[in-house]
Amino acid sequence: MTEVPLGDAEATSLARTYAALSDPVRLRLLSLIASAGEMCSCDLVEPLAKSQPTVSHHTRILAEAGLIDGDKRGRWVYWRVSPKRSNFVSQVLGG
Amino acid sequence: MTEVPLGDAEATSLARTYAALSDPVRLRLLSLIASAGEMCSCDLVEPLAKSQPTVSHHTRILAEAGLIDGDKRGRWVYWRVSPKRSNFVSQVLGG
Repeated sequence: MTEVPLGDAEATSLARTYAALSDPVRLRLLSLIASAGEMCSCDLVEPLAKSQPTVSHHTRILAEAGLIDGDKRGRWVYWRVSPKRSNFVSQVLGG
Repeated sequence: MTEVPLGDAEATSLARTYAALSDPVRLRLLSLIASAGEMCSCDLVEPLAKSQPTVSHHTRILAEAGLIDGDKRGRWVYWRVSPKRSNFVSQVLGG
């Protein structure tokens, strides 16, 4: 159990992270990237059955939350779980 | 790392849980209840600096997500972390 109640600043930062995780498409996307290790945004369209702009919208939100990092190569971005957040991501996907 | 990408149903259920956690007041509230073990809704007003109706709104959302259980005694509800979710709650508050 948590020893000390969360402070305001910490609660605000955590709430932002959970907001990024509060969408089923983003959770599936994060799970696909975590399982694959690295994934091209071009390969996320088919398993999610979403358009490229929708995929990009969701990857942007996960990246802004610091959960994934993108590497642009040519016309595509390759996504990985942010190394600093890899334990946290395993945890949140395990539910 | 997660072995298998999340399915639709699991992602939808997890996303609902994270939506309940996507608000700083609810995270602080959950953290206060987790720290205290049990807490009267009447004692949540002061540390959160929110009105009783606001506290009730947020406890209801956490209860609907299955994260806390309420026990009505007289005019007040006493809240505890749901025993089935206590590991999960420790995890999410640890961020």
